[in-house]
Amino acid sequence: MKTCRHAQRTMNFYAGPSTLPLSVLEELAETIVDYHGSGLSLIETSHRSPMYDRVHNRAIDLVRELLGVPRSYHVLFLGGGATLQFSMVPMNLIPPGGGCDFVLSGTWAEKAMEDAEKIGNVRVVFDGRADGYVTLPRDVRTSEGSCYLHITSNETINGVQWKRFPATADVPVVADMSSDIMSRRFDAEAFGVIYAGAQKNLGAAGVTVVIIRDDLVESKRPGLTAYLRYATHAEKSSLYNTPPVFSVYTLCLVLEWVRSQGGVEEIERMNKKKSAAVYDAIDAGCGFYSSPVDRDVRSTMNVVFRLPTEEMERRFVAEAEAAGMIGLKGHRSVGGCRASLYNALPEEWADALADFMGDFLRRNG
Amino acid sequence: MKTCRHAQRTMNFYAGPSTLPLSVLEELAETIVDYHGSGLSLIETSHRSPMYDRVHNRAIDLVRELLGVPRSYHVLFLGGGATLQFSMVPMNLIPPGGGCDFVLSGTWAEKAMEDAEKIGNVRVVFDGRADGYVTLPRDVRTSEGSCYLHITSNETINGVQWKRFPATADVPVVADMSSDIMSRRFDAEAFGVIYAGAQKNLGAAGVTVVIIRDDLVESKRPGLTAYLRYATHAEKSSLYNTPPVFSVYTLCLVLEWVRSQGGVEEIERMNKKKSAAVYDAIDAGCGFYSSPVDRDVRSTMNVVFRLPTEEMERRFVAEAEAAGMIGLKGHRSVGGCRASLYNALPEEWADALADFMGDFLRRNG
Repeated sequence: MKTCRHAQRTMNFYAGPSTLPLSVLEELAETIVDYHGSGLSLIETSHRSPMYDRVHNRAIDLVRELLGVPRSYHVLFLGGGATLQFSMVPMNLIPPGGGCDFVLSGTWAEKAMEDAEKIGNVRVVFDGRADGYVTLPRDVRTSEGSCYLHITSNETINGVQWKRFPATADVPVVADMSSDIMSRRFDAEAFGVIYAGAQKNLGAAGVTVVIIRDDLVESKRPGLTAYLRYATHAEKSSLYNTPPVFSVYTLCLVLEWVRSQGGVEEIERMNKKKSAAVYDAIDAGCGFYSSPVDRDVRSTMNVVFRLPTEEMERRFVAEAEAAGMIGLKGHRSVGGCRASLYNALPEEWADALADFMGDFLRRNG
Repeated sequence: MKTCRHAQRTMNFYAGPSTLPLSVLEELAETIVDYHGSGLSLIETSHRSPMYDRVHNRAIDLVRELLGVPRSYHVLFLGGGATLQFSMVPMNLIPPGGGCDFVLSGTWAEKAMEDAEKIGNVRVVFDGRADGYVTLPRDVRTSEGSCYLHITSNETINGVQWKRFPATADVPVVADMSSDIMSRRFDAEAFGVIYAGAQKNLGAAGVTVVIIRDDLVESKRPGLTAYLRYATHAEKSSLYNTPPVFSVYTLCLVLEWVRSQGGVEEIERMNKKKSAAVYDAIDAGCGFYSSPVDRDVRSTMNVVFRLPTEEMERRFVAEAEAAGMIGLKGHRSVGGCRASLYNALPEEWADALADFMGDFLRRNG
């Protein structure tokens, strides 16, 4: 039955927005006109109503439960994507004259750093630019007086992913986890701030989850306007202004789905299997396919690979699309191919891609 | 048929998020699993795909067409609600040392002003606070060197609405139109910036429409971070980062619905009829119902009214709810009752409320 339903679906390897659990889409379809017999849609409901309140609080509780976030952290739902967090993190955490440390691991770290540099003094503790962002540091030494160390847990464009997060003594670690939150277990208490746009593993674009330790909530910078202060949202449990109701609802359904799958532990096991299938297809090509990324930091979420020529890459992407697999073109800034294998991507799709890669190799290798 | 379908619906007078056209909800339900035979949902699709691109650009075109926005303006889709615009407007339009003028017309103007005061020098050109925000100025004199005049076209909490917008010579007018955009015709060229959260007349919370004149796009304040600069979004047609895909799609469907109704002119005619029905019920009560708002600035969107006692108001709201009408309680900050009659609210619901008000008066007056 499950396979049958998936069979009507396009195999979607987009880097984000990306594939969602079919059961979540079906529940959205069922409830979008009439939310559980209420005679109206949840998206027509006041964000101060008990009906929305239950969804909002359930989503917060599920983030806490699934990631093991203790009570000493706030879970916030904000707008503006991770991109707005590139502004808000330094604005709230760096006092006038202060600074922070950055691991420059790829395109997303670059973007976050460009904004932080406008607010405070940024020290780059690792710079992967010269190598084309194919690796990550083993150890990171933070600076004296640094307000935080910023890392990007997974780089969607470059395909590198932290496997063991850096340990810092007193400096809070801030992580952009937009592209791999909920994909694997980690110790939430090792972080000061975690932020993640929803459109990969958490549902629909429009909401950003921010997990922030209580002692970091109050802004270190006087005169910040209301929306830009974490404290504004923390004090009102993200109901200071109208939240992105649909995206919070979808987040809630996606988290229920993660729970029903056996939680993050089981999701992690599946993600390893899926990415292993595709990496094995790369390695089995004896050089026809190549991964530019250091083997020990290869991403389980975004598998980046090259073919012998750009012409061959174009043909690969076109033939895959004809076979029902879309979104395999690499990011325009780096070229090549990329298969994004987020949580909701069924194992069969990863296997289908691996099979297709073997077949394409036999025909062209 | 139409009446029959509406009959199963709860009559929803929420101030926002608020009622949507039933046909829009039905189209969302039909397309949310499989977008027009594509084998995937629009919310699973890359925001760089042709499939999303068509929706994004169609929504921009419809905003232009329905409001008569000329080519010398940008139409942007941003996150963070109108509340983030309370930050972005002064950050972009006021240079260091500069200032702006404000009409203090109600709760929302207050909030916008509190943020502007953190950025520049604010001069209040009209202050309705002492009177409890029941009226609006006839004329407004802007200050020498003011970067803009800020107005709130409609105050949802206080129920006052500009009927003729202020004319300024060289000072751009910036309007928060969150609660009455698309409800009536106006001259878009009389404004420098218009911004509006979607969750009243434009669809689902999560997207804010910003209409900004080309000469105001470039920030007057150096060092602004990426998301906070209008220019960032204008240069990339609101695709600098992932837009709130679902909310833009819903916006597009709602605008198609406005068009199918005969455009803003016809919507305006219906809004006048709906609000007249409820205001007539107030006036027919001979003092049992009372509107605190000056007659010539009564809002067509949010009809605010009081009953003789708070106890009576509680009973009114409870009995209305029992009769299938929800969302009639006034905002917690001002008390009383409020009926929000946004574009998508069917005429029959306004008539049903007016009938209920007459009946309640007969039983309790």
